[in-house]
Amino acid sequence: MALLFVSTPARLPVWQQMFDAAGLRMIAGEAAVTDPAEVTAIACWIPPADLTRYPNLRVVLSVGAGVDHLPPLPEGVALVRTLAPGIEAMVRDWVVMATLMLHRDMPTYLQQARAGLWQSQPVRLASSRRVGIMGMGRIGGLVATSLSALGFEVAGLSRSGRDGAVPVYPTARLDDFLARTDLLVCLLPLTAETRGILGRQAFAALPRGAGLVHAGRGAHLDPAALRDALDEGQLSGAMLDVTDPEPLPPDHWMWRHPRLVITPHVAAQTDAAEGAQHAIAVMRALQSGAALPGRVDVALGY
Amino acid sequence: MALLFVSTPARLPVWQQMFDAAGLRMIAGEAAVTDPAEVTAIACWIPPADLTRYPNLRVVLSVGAGVDHLPPLPEGVALVRTLAPGIEAMVRDWVVMATLMLHRDMPTYLQQARAGLWQSQPVRLASSRRVGIMGMGRIGGLVATSLSALGFEVAGLSRSGRDGAVPVYPTARLDDFLARTDLLVCLLPLTAETRGILGRQAFAALPRGAGLVHAGRGAHLDPAALRDALDEGQLSGAMLDVTDPEPLPPDHWMWRHPRLVITPHVAAQTDAAEGAQHAIAVMRALQSGAALPGRVDVALGY
Repeated sequence: MALLFVSTPARLPVWQQMFDAAGLRMIAGEAAVTDPAEVTAIACWIPPADLTRYPNLRVVLSVGAGVDHLPPLPEGVALVRTLAPGIEAMVRDWVVMATLMLHRDMPTYLQQARAGLWQSQPVRLASSRRVGIMGMGRIGGLVATSLSALGFEVAGLSRSGRDGAVPVYPTARLDDFLARTDLLVCLLPLTAETRGILGRQAFAALPRGAGLVHAGRGAHLDPAALRDALDEGQLSGAMLDVTDPEPLPPDHWMWRHPRLVITPHVAAQTDAAEGAQHAIAVMRALQSGAALPGRVDVALGY
Repeated sequence: MALLFVSTPARLPVWQQMFDAAGLRMIAGEAAVTDPAEVTAIACWIPPADLTRYPNLRVVLSVGAGVDHLPPLPEGVALVRTLAPGIEAMVRDWVVMATLMLHRDMPTYLQQARAGLWQSQPVRLASSRRVGIMGMGRIGGLVATSLSALGFEVAGLSRSGRDGAVPVYPTARLDDFLARTDLLVCLLPLTAETRGILGRQAFAALPRGAGLVHAGRGAHLDPAALRDALDEGQLSGAMLDVTDPEPLPPDHWMWRHPRLVITPHVAAQTDAAEGAQHAIAVMRALQSGAALPGRVDVALGY
């Protein structure tokens, strides 16, 4: 019983030390595998091409929060995504920052600064702005709490539509949700249903001049629809942490659009120790037969 | 008994309507004064040059939160600054945004975006960063609460050094306060003691790579010291909402420094209705002899 680590080498020393301390076996890289039958779990971003090499494989553990990039796994192999409180807090911080940047007209001020132009825009109270959060999982809940505390009027959108700290619309009421949303935050997982959801129809359903904060996945967004909505003023600005493709090519128009601010997929990074701690919890659950923490429902896609 | 309004004409209709509804007399502009003896209060940013024209003047009401721009008033005339919950929340929102922007390396990402460069910087948890707030009045308290809720380790600095929601250092322990501060927030009033406080000595006392969020007054800051600290890496970045002079001239180096983000004194704007409401409370206090809300201690300067 061993975990095969095929992720970022920089994280290896932390993982090795923590697995040693936990009395669990970890193998660093496929080249170091001497007995493939030993491997019961693989920690990776992209898994090895040939998983049939490992007859006793039971878990593939994605070292990030997302799993949409992974190929289908062989039957009997569970998919787990990393649960790390640090990831959730980091994304929350980026989303709170991005929402405030749109609320307080930072794209305009950044543009004005380039021209040395000292000109104020009307300042609005957070309590006059309605934030709508698509995706009310753990991170969505944290974002809702933080933005509510700043006075924003917050609602969520989720498959279940179950109210939490804020009112939550079911996905069937997407248009009602969009119609009451001045600042739209996307935290959705990428699935067949959500691919392309940030497109012409959604933008048209928002109030004129709405803003977009996107920390989901690049493929949620239709870039041509975004450009048109920004150029026509239907959207007043957007903050994107994800694009399609990534990295965004240096000459892509998105880098240079005056109503757009891009960060290079940095809303969160998994802390090595937190990732290793979660992997250890998965190995212990495998040993004891307990439910695997972070297990993904492959039918739902998250 | 009347209030003379000599402030932004755009706010006049709201004030007039609210004074009418309150059964209080308001005079719109000096040209409309028929009996100067009627004027007991003046609402203004810059007061009329000759206040001796008004023999019964008892209050000058600054329509902003600051009073450092006002000349000395005649004896017996009280100075009041506008108390408006909206101002406080607006400044809080700007400071939370600016602190998160430095915490999450936005000056670097904005610079990279100009070059079309997709490159991540290490993401840190808010809990690993120490915020230090200079000026622990009402706004400082709000900022401390919001940033603590995001996980930052927050401390304040104030004349009294009385702990509030966070530990507060007395001004005598400025160097200790600076030594434990990664992200320095200035919310001080401008007084003889605080003029130039953001200078070489303060920057040298911060840990290397600290960030500066400045929403006090332009004259708190020594621009040459800031430039040197940024260029030497002693400061990693700064967000400034105030400059000296204002407006900042179009060709000023500050607009173009890659580690600096400037907004044109827009952390807050007084909402017309909130300002009028406060002015009405001041007039009622004058009538009843109660303490004037927002009265400034002229000796302290705030």
